[in-house]
This record gives sequence, C-alpha cells and structure tokens, in this order.
Amino acid sequence: MPISKIYKLYISPDRKYVKVLNNLLGFVPSNLSLYKMAFRHKSVALILKNGSKSSNERLEFLGDAVLGSVVAEVLFKLYPYKEEGFLTEMRSKIVRRANLNQLGRKLGFQELIDFDIKSINVNAKQSSLLGDAFEALIGAVYLDKGYNFTKEFIDERIIKPHVDIHTLELTETNFKSKLIEWCQRHSKDISFEPISNVEGDSAKLFTVRVFIDSEPMAIGVDYNKKNAEKFAAEKSCEMLGI
Amino acid sequence: MPISKIYKLYISPDRKYVKVLNNLLGFVPSNLSLYKMAFRHKSVALILKNGSKSSNERLEFLGDAVLGSVVAEVLFKLYPYKEEGFLTEMRSKIVRRANLNQLGRKLGFQELIDFDIKSINVNAKQSSLLGDAFEALIGAVYLDKGYNFTKEFIDERIIKPHVDIHTLELTETNFKSKLIEWCQRHSKDISFEPISNVEGDSAKLFTVRVFIDSEPMAIGVDYNKKNAEKFAAEKSCEMLGI
Repeated sequence: MPISKIYKLYISPDRKYVKVLNNLLGFVPSNLSLYKMAFRHKSVALILKNGSKSSNERLEFLGDAVLGSVVAEVLFKLYPYKEEGFLTEMRSKIVRRANLNQLGRKLGFQELIDFDIKSINVNAKQSSLLGDAFEALIGAVYLDKGYNFTKEFIDERIIKPHVDIHTLELTETNFKSKLIEWCQRHSKDISFEPISNVEGDSAKLFTVRVFIDSEPMAIGVDYNKKNAEKFAAEKSCEMLGI
Repeated sequence: MPISKIYKLYISPDRKYVKVLNNLLGFVPSNLSLYKMAFRHKSVALILKNGSKSSNERLEFLGDAVLGSVVAEVLFKLYPYKEEGFLTEMRSKIVRRANLNQLGRKLGFQELIDFDIKSINVNAKQSSLLGDAFEALIGAVYLDKGYNFTKEFIDERIIKPHVDIHTLELTETNFKSKLIEWCQRHSKDISFEPISNVEGDSAKLFTVRVFIDSEPMAIGVDYNKKNAEKFAAEKSCEMLGI
C-alpha cells in the first residue's frame, strides 16, 4: 500500500471519514474535499469569501451529466439493435430520481449527508436529498479520478450490484397507481382534475392536473385523456421522488 | 506518419472520404464505419440481417449524452462561483438544436450527410438534420477515440473556434420575437392562444399554445401569462430548430 494511502487511512485526522468512504466507494479518494462537498446539502452551504455559496448543487449538475453519459454508453453497448427511443426510455428509468434516492439509501448516504433538518420539509427531504447527493458523488468521483475510472465505478459498484436492467426493461411503471398508493399510504387525498378540454383544429387536447391534499402538482397534456393523466402522474411522482 | 495512416489517407479505396474527415476533425479516424454511420440519416437507414435498422439515431443518443457531459465540465470549470441554475441555463444555450444545426452548417455537414431528400419535408430538414448529425459525430468520435480525446476535440475544435460563451452569457434570447420574426420571414401566420385560465387554490394558472398557420405547436404553462407565452415560444423554436 502506498504511503499516502496508509497516511490517509490510519494517521490523518480524517482517517475515520476516509475509511467510511473507502468502504462505500471501494477506493481511497485522492481529493477528500470533493467528497465532503458532495455530501453538503445546500441548507448547510459554506459561505465563501467572495460571498458565493458552496454546497453539493454544482457537483450534482456535473454528476448528473456524467451519469447520463455513462448510462447512455452502457445501454448503447448492451442493446446493439435497439432504437434510440428504447435507449432513451431505458435511461430515464435508470436515472429516475426515485431510483437514485433508493440507491443513495442502499449505500447508506443518510449517515453521510450533512444538512440542516430544520430547513427541510418532510416532502423535500424525502424527494431529493439522497438522489441529489448520489449525483454529486458521481461528480466528485469524476473530478477526483477521471471519466474512465468513474465509468468503471458506476458499472461495477452501482449498476451491476444494484440495478436490474433486464427487469427494468420489462417494467412499464404505472405511475397513476403508484401515486394513488403513495397517497393512501400517507393518508393524503388525490384528484386528477381536467383543467381544459380544448377543440384544436385536428383533435381534442386534454390538460390534466394532479392535486394532492388540494396542493397543485404536475400537469399532463395529451390528445388522449388517459395519457394526459399518466403524464401528470409521472411528473408528480418525479416531483415527490416516489 | 504511421503506415496505417498513410494507407488510409493515400491508398485505401476510402482515401477521399478519409481526407475529408481529416480536414473536418483534425485527425485520421481509426474506425471509419462509425463516421459513415454518423452521417447516415434514418431516411437511408441500412436494414441489417436481423431486420433492425442502422442509421445515425443511436449514435445521436450517445453523442448527445457525451456532449452534455463535456459541456457541463467546461462550464463547471469556467465558472467556479456560479450556481447550478446558471450552469444549467448556459448549457442549454450552448446545446440548443439551433446552435448545433448552425455548427453542423459551419463544419460543412450538408456535403457529408447521406439522406433521401424525398422523404424529408422542408421543416424537418431545416429543423434537425445537421444538429442530429453533429451529435452523432460526437458519438462516433467517442466510440472511436474515448472520452478524453472527445473532450479535447469538443473544446479545441468546436467550442473555442465556434462558440462565444461569454456572449451567450449576456444574451437573454427573446424566443417570442425570434419566433415571430421567423414566421414573418417564411410568410406564416402565428398566434398565441390561451387554452385555459384556471383558478387554482393559490393563483391563476395560464396555459398558452402557439399556432403556426393553424398548426398546433408547443404549449407553455405558468402563473404569469407572459412567461407561459415565453415558454411556449421557446419550445416551439426548439421544435422548428430556430
């Protein structure tokens, strides 16, 4: 083991944190501050000298992009004869916020994320804290170790052990049922309200909005009413991180 | 110069094509078939033995993701103190379909793309042929040469010579004016029609749809009518590749 690694794992003041990261990632990070930043929620952002704030939001932007690119390549190679529409749909199934939240939970992020519980309402906490940190972590690994390393990390430590791609392929998520079940579980009222039925020049266009406990959620628009509801439910699930 | 390069440039039956690509890219491709595929529009897709079609659509999916990731990193490093919202907006300004079409035109793609003119209507041709091929080319370069090479290629041959990031930063595109001007230039009627004004529990929600020559285009939704129109105009510009 190189001396720098021994120092980080056993001697440095950060050794506890380094060990936790080593267990999580499967490698000893080079630049520890990137990982600290990945787990710093905006509710506890550092204020820099120039007045700007430092939290995991910027890393999340970068990690989201890197993750999208890696997953695109994995699917491109896994399905050499499938068309672009299929690949796009599969990717969005994999990188859905709810999946990323679940991944974050499986990986034990709840112990690692630094946030101010007072400033976070329960819905927001549930919806995005873990998934956002997951993307930020990918951004940190990328800056620390480069693209090819990150690609292998995502493939070996995330996708292979935690994502069942072939099951996802067969799963057509019924977002409407999913949303209704979630509301039942949380004792919330849900309704799908048509907010306009307009006669266009060619066909009737439906706009539907989901309301949960009278709070307006996402809107869906389609020429078919069921589809409009489906789209509204899907976007609402995304908003709630379900 | 290595023998394989001399062969490709001066001896192989593809030497003319290799020279064109060499001028365009600044390097001699290793796997020529990837680049041929990048310039094959779906209207002239090859039918493979198993019945699936081969055109640039799959490469476009991959290239779009790689481009998004590279541009994310460029912006992340260029603007170390800007927040995620700014970075997201800047990226969408850079990778807008209209910009990619323009890049494709500057790079001379119109001479390279293989397509069946009969199967393409004028709008569709204008809207996406060049930008789609641009993304597919990025996908080809990535598969041929890897991520770091592609990153340098995008930065050195595309962004630095052709994208004025600091001007884009200052430009707040007025999509409504842009769309109206485009309609005037093409002698088309345009209207922004409210398709619903709904009293929600907290505020009035506006849904606006753009119609061009009575053809329905994109929809915008917002609590502010002007914003709803702006969003509808922006999405319509994207649809038309303006």
